[in-house]
Amino acid sequence: MRYRIGVDIGGTGIKIGLVDENNQIVNRHSLPTGAERPYLSVVEDIVKGIAAVKGDISYKEIISVGVGCPGFVNPETGLLVHAGNLNWENVPLKDALESRMGLPVYVGNDANCAVVGETVAGAAKGKRNVMLITLGTGVGGGLILNGKLFTGSMGMGAELGHAILVMDGEPCTCGIRGCFEAYASVSALIRQTKEMMERCPDSAMHEFSQKNARIDGRTAFDCARMGDEAAKRVVEQYIRYVAAGIGSQINVFRPEAVLIGGGISAEGDHLIKPLNEMVGEYVFAFKQVGAPPILKASLGNDAGIIGAAYLDAVS
Amino acid sequence: MRYRIGVDIGGTGIKIGLVDENNQIVNRHSLPTGAERPYLSVVEDIVKGIAAVKGDISYKEIISVGVGCPGFVNPETGLLVHAGNLNWENVPLKDALESRMGLPVYVGNDANCAVVGETVAGAAKGKRNVMLITLGTGVGGGLILNGKLFTGSMGMGAELGHAILVMDGEPCTCGIRGCFEAYASVSALIRQTKEMMERCPDSAMHEFSQKNARIDGRTAFDCARMGDEAAKRVVEQYIRYVAAGIGSQINVFRPEAVLIGGGISAEGDHLIKPLNEMVGEYVFAFKQVGAPPILKASLGNDAGIIGAAYLDAVS
Repeated sequence: MRYRIGVDIGGTGIKIGLVDENNQIVNRHSLPTGAERPYLSVVEDIVKGIAAVKGDISYKEIISVGVGCPGFVNPETGLLVHAGNLNWENVPLKDALESRMGLPVYVGNDANCAVVGETVAGAAKGKRNVMLITLGTGVGGGLILNGKLFTGSMGMGAELGHAILVMDGEPCTCGIRGCFEAYASVSALIRQTKEMMERCPDSAMHEFSQKNARIDGRTAFDCARMGDEAAKRVVEQYIRYVAAGIGSQINVFRPEAVLIGGGISAEGDHLIKPLNEMVGEYVFAFKQVGAPPILKASLGNDAGIIGAAYLDAVS
Repeated sequence: MRYRIGVDIGGTGIKIGLVDENNQIVNRHSLPTGAERPYLSVVEDIVKGIAAVKGDISYKEIISVGVGCPGFVNPETGLLVHAGNLNWENVPLKDALESRMGLPVYVGNDANCAVVGETVAGAAKGKRNVMLITLGTGVGGGLILNGKLFTGSMGMGAELGHAILVMDGEPCTCGIRGCFEAYASVSALIRQTKEMMERCPDSAMHEFSQKNARIDGRTAFDCARMGDEAAKRVVEQYIRYVAAGIGSQINVFRPEAVLIGGGISAEGDHLIKPLNEMVGEYVFAFKQVGAPPILKASLGNDAGIIGAAYLDAVS
């Protein structure tokens, strides 16, 4: 048996997994990101984490290390060009890791890793044209076109979260206004929740969020399920933003299936069912040819690890 | 010498060209579309037009016939699924033409044909990742990715004109609201011109359009060049819409170059120069990696004919 190692760098935590040839994660390790540190200190922690997750297995049995991270990655150079959520710029992640480990290292955008994972082992297994949208701290996009990972020319495209949804609209972390991400990320949902709470002092969201000592990405969804009208309006409008952003990309790529990942996908059918109902309003020639199904990604957090591990196979 | 035939169906006219192996159009024919007729009547006219343009050349010397048309085309089935500007739905263009001519027929979206033409013989000759945006009656998109025509899974994507630019914004001919096309087409520019004229009774656009007996896609550009402030504002805002729509797609595809075709591209540097200046505001990681150059398509109306003729070579 040979193995791959997948590293999933998030805004707050780093997850490392040892993946076998049956796409199973057979050992795991996790650590805090500490993105405020110099990146070389983070790299050292990743190297230690890989040693820990590898255990007794020799480096010879490891095919490659794949690293998924948020932001703008050039998979050809292995440079993390820009990651707004991490405050990292022009970090040579591939070189730094390869020089410390003597293993081939592949670097990919986290959403690209997720779509690879879901296509290798998850909800899109066997499909050749797949779009994945991650609704999390940021909004990412991953694309499998004709069975291959699509990353744009120079490996720097497929930034579906930074397609424009409302020109000159809400400011995005990337500096552009009106990106899909500025309407569909967790922070966007929290902003939308707070705005509605301000407008509706009678909403149950006030008591609910005081009890929880915070307003987060679940506040509106939870209160909507309890029947609160203001919360229902937040959720419906949020899902409408997501539907429009996805519909717009369906018109561009026409995938066989659209997968939803990221933290907000945990809402399951409360998100997925209305999304499928609404998306047709934004799909070109919907009456004639319909829209592809929108499905929940099935690997959850493991998609990032498995997909990163398999970056060598789809590049 | 062998030849290809390219047919370019537009909203008002059909252009047919005999294209030699040096990508030169050696004979031409054109006829009115008359899209209000049953499509078979249009097909008969195209067959007659092909016979005329072919002249003395035998059918054996013709490699294939390619047809470009506006709207939503399935290149695999040769079905013109939906063409808002022609009022055609589910027209079996490929079958109808093949059965009458005994030549292989390829059908493609007009913007796809344009990008093929420009990459075979025009401004993007030799490039492997090219995005073309046509600003005409509608707004079309064509993509060459890794040297091949990208038409989305099932050949029904790359509808860049129907990516959303302003969610729930201006109504589009396709039934969706807020499409790029609804802000960047000739009709959109005319709407923007009329709105500004209503707000600015002193604008020179009033006298100018009375003299010309119409308001068209050139009114604002012409009056802006004459120094009219209201017209300058129309042109600036219009170019801003185009820049945002292109920037959004650069984030998705990151092409090596963006070409502008269609009627409005005749404005040349008055359009292309400010477009290049503005687009960075909408490009992800612009400070780090810049934006690809935006160029005027160089084949003009011939791109549609040459590209249609070469559909066999890039499919």
